[in-house]
Formats: sequence, C-alpha cells, structure tokens
Amino acid sequence: MIRITLIGSGNVAQHLIKTFTKSELVEIVQVFSRKKETLASLIEFDKIVNDFEDLKEADLYIIAVSDKAIADVSKQLPFQNRIVVHTSGAASLDVLDSKNRKGVFYPLQTFSKSKEIDFSTVPLCLEAENTFDFRVLETVAKSISNAVFAINSDQRKALHVAAVFVNNFTNHLYQIGQEICEEHQVPFEVLKPLIKETAEKINTLDPVDAQTGPAKRHDSNTIEAHLEYLTKENQKNIYKILTQSIQDNGKTF
Amino acid sequence: MIRITLIGSGNVAQHLIKTFTKSELVEIVQVFSRKKETLASLIEFDKIVNDFEDLKEADLYIIAVSDKAIADVSKQLPFQNRIVVHTSGAASLDVLDSKNRKGVFYPLQTFSKSKEIDFSTVPLCLEAENTFDFRVLETVAKSISNAVFAINSDQRKALHVAAVFVNNFTNHLYQIGQEICEEHQVPFEVLKPLIKETAEKINTLDPVDAQTGPAKRHDSNTIEAHLEYLTKENQKNIYKILTQSIQDNGKTF
Repeated sequence: MIRITLIGSGNVAQHLIKTFTKSELVEIVQVFSRKKETLASLIEFDKIVNDFEDLKEADLYIIAVSDKAIADVSKQLPFQNRIVVHTSGAASLDVLDSKNRKGVFYPLQTFSKSKEIDFSTVPLCLEAENTFDFRVLETVAKSISNAVFAINSDQRKALHVAAVFVNNFTNHLYQIGQEICEEHQVPFEVLKPLIKETAEKINTLDPVDAQTGPAKRHDSNTIEAHLEYLTKENQKNIYKILTQSIQDNGKTF
Repeated sequence: MIRITLIGSGNVAQHLIKTFTKSELVEIVQVFSRKKETLASLIEFDKIVNDFEDLKEADLYIIAVSDKAIADVSKQLPFQNRIVVHTSGAASLDVLDSKNRKGVFYPLQTFSKSKEIDFSTVPLCLEAENTFDFRVLETVAKSISNAVFAINSDQRKALHVAAVFVNNFTNHLYQIGQEICEEHQVPFEVLKPLIKETAEKINTLDPVDAQTGPAKRHDSNTIEAHLEYLTKENQKNIYKILTQSIQDNGKTF
C-alpha cells in the first residue's frame, strides 16, 4: 500500500481523489484544500486539512494546484527529503523546492468538472530524480492507468505545446464549425460523426496521410468560394493561414 | 426495390457501391467507370459500363465524380426527366443539367480508400426539386444510414465550410502535434487519448464550454514560453492566430 497525500482542490485534484479512492494499491492519507467544504463530497471530512502543519507522513505528496502556485506550496511544506511531485505539463521540475525529492506526475488529458474520465486510458507522464522515486511514481501510476510513460522535462514541454494544438485549438475549430452552422440554421449534430471519424482516423493513418480537402487538393475555386462565404474576419484569417500551412507542408520555413 | 446507377469510380463511388450492395431496399443496375478494371473487385463485371450510351433505365442516377466534372457528366447523359443527383458538398444543385430532375445526395464524411466506413452513422444531406423526388432519395438514404437530413443548397455550403474547419484543419493540427512530438522524441501515441477525449467531449458540452488552456486562461507566461519553444514559423503563426481568436471569442470583428 502506497500512502499518498494530495494537495489541491481543482479539477485534476478532484479526478485524482476519485480515482485513487478506487485503487487497492494506494491509500489516500490526507487531502489539502484551503476550503475544506470543496472536497467534502469526495472524501471523509477528517482527512481534509487546510493547514500545512497538519500534514502527516506519506510516501508521496502530489501537488495539483495552478502552475503559478506550485513553487509557493512546495516551499510551505513543513518537512524534507520526501517525494513531492506536481501534475503540470508546463512547469519544470525545478519549480519545486529542493528540500524534498522532486518529481512530476502529469496526467495528459482534458479534465472538466462536469464530465467523468476513465483514468485507465489517461497517459501519465512521470519524471523523478532517481530510480527509486521513479519506481514509486510508476507503481502509483500503473495502479490507475494502462498508459504510463517516462517523460523528461523537455519532452513534457513538447507534449504540453502539442496538446495545445490537438486539444485547445482543435476545440476552437469545433466552436467555429458550430458558429457557421448556427449562422446558417444547420444543426451542429450533422457534423459530429465527421468530428468523431477525423479523430479516429489517426489511429490507422498518420495525420499527413489522412489529410483531405480543398487545401490539400490545391482547389483554388473552392477555397475562394469558402473565403467569400465566411462572414467573420477571424474565421477568414484562420482559414487562410491553415490552408497555407497545409499547402506548404514539408517545405522549409 | 429502388434501382440505382452510380457514375464514378473514386472514393465516394466505391464506398457507395459497397454499401448499396449490402442494402436489401436498393439494387445497383450499373456503375459507370472510364476504366472498368477500377471497380472490378466491387461488382459484377457486366454491370460496369464506360460508355454513357450503354446506361439502362434506373430510378436514380448518382453522379459521384470530382466537383469540376459534375456539369460535364450530367450533360452527357443520353436521357431526360429522370432523377440525377450529385454527391458534392460544394457544388450547387444548378451545376446539374436541367434536362433531368436535379438533386443532391451528399454524404458528410471523410472517405479514405484504405479505411472502411460504417455508413449507418454517416449523415446524408439530401436536396431535391420536388417532394416525390425527395421521397425517393430519402428511401434510398434511410436504407443505408440512420442520419438523414433535408439540407438546402445554402445550408450545404455552410456544412461544407464548417467541415473544412472540423475535419481538414483539425487533422492538420494533429499533424503539427505529431511534428512537435517527433522533433522532441516523444511518441505521438501519448497524445491520442487526448485527441479522442477532445472529440468526445463535445457530445456532452458545447465547444465554447469545453474550451480550456493557456489562451482561454489568458496565461501570457505560458503562451510566451510556447511561442519561444516552437521552432517553425507556420506553427508560431497558427499558435498566435488561434490564441487570439480564442481570447477574442464573442467580440465582434
């Protein structure tokens, strides 16, 4: 049994609490939340603390707070030489105070309060300063997920930037698709099977081989007609720059 | 039994042949292909013709050729007053020669030769000039798909442009994600669960409510770090314009 303490009360912290509660290899010792009530529905109330001095000994402390707050929280921990990790894709290992043994436990997924996540498919990207600490993180990670990876800080940075493209930006393109539909009284539902298939296709084809459409075909008539049809400047600009990028694919910039 | 003739031998034509062959409500009378061999593995060879004069009578002729070729093919048909439809999202009803009864049978999905499609979930967008013709199209469409919609020419144009955003452009963002991973020796596999979840999330949340990330949070430190980390100009430009568009969301342009 690995004894874990979670620090934080946001989306990631809450999903981790729910998931660890189900794991038989892990025991949640305590959770830290400034407002105890936030987590009251997720865990026994006497395990929730809001004073760092009340933190008991644990094998692993997981700091799941906003990127800006990680350094400060790790400084305030009233102990040393224990394993303390953060869950951020963007923060380096070094934002953690070096009085403790530093590590990263980064779940690469998009979390919403209102949607349950099957953690068994969430990639967990782990980093530690030595093999023993890594094994602890790995044991914990494998107890909740089938997709566990050793990812160093530079690789994690790459993943974080890439995730912005495939998640944040992709979702914004969905939003534009919905706006265009609404403007012309078409149900957005009609596009959902296409969105699903687009995402599934890359399991069997590399994205570059899955590319279709007027940009790829250099079909300038259709491209011009689309640009004329669009009414919003941001949509036109995004259309132009992504069309250009598809067409220039492979060339050096 | 509705008797159908298909004209064309590309991706869409081939997927339609496979699908109609399985349907019990529809009979394929003939298929037209300039090179008969292209379709030889899909249908009895004596049903394949390469001369318009050899076309027999059918209830419905489906022209599944490139957008540019639709007008010419429809002109060459040696009969009149029959139902002739095209399968294009971009072409208007009027590119079809008016000697026949015009219509559209637009499957809104991304088709690859190398990947099978479950047609029952493919949205079929139908348009016809009168109720009788529409009912014929609808009967045929419902025999292969559970997602059949009446979509007029303006709506179809909106769908086609929106599809470029949610399919073509999204797939290009996947490609950029893969490029960033490869540049930093991270397996692209790590991102696939995120891609899947991003696409699934919009079944329960509107895209605007599913939006997360540094742009949405106006987290300028992370945005600057990402822009510095990216090495290619097209990636930087796409990052900037999509970040701006997410942040300006809701404002008028």
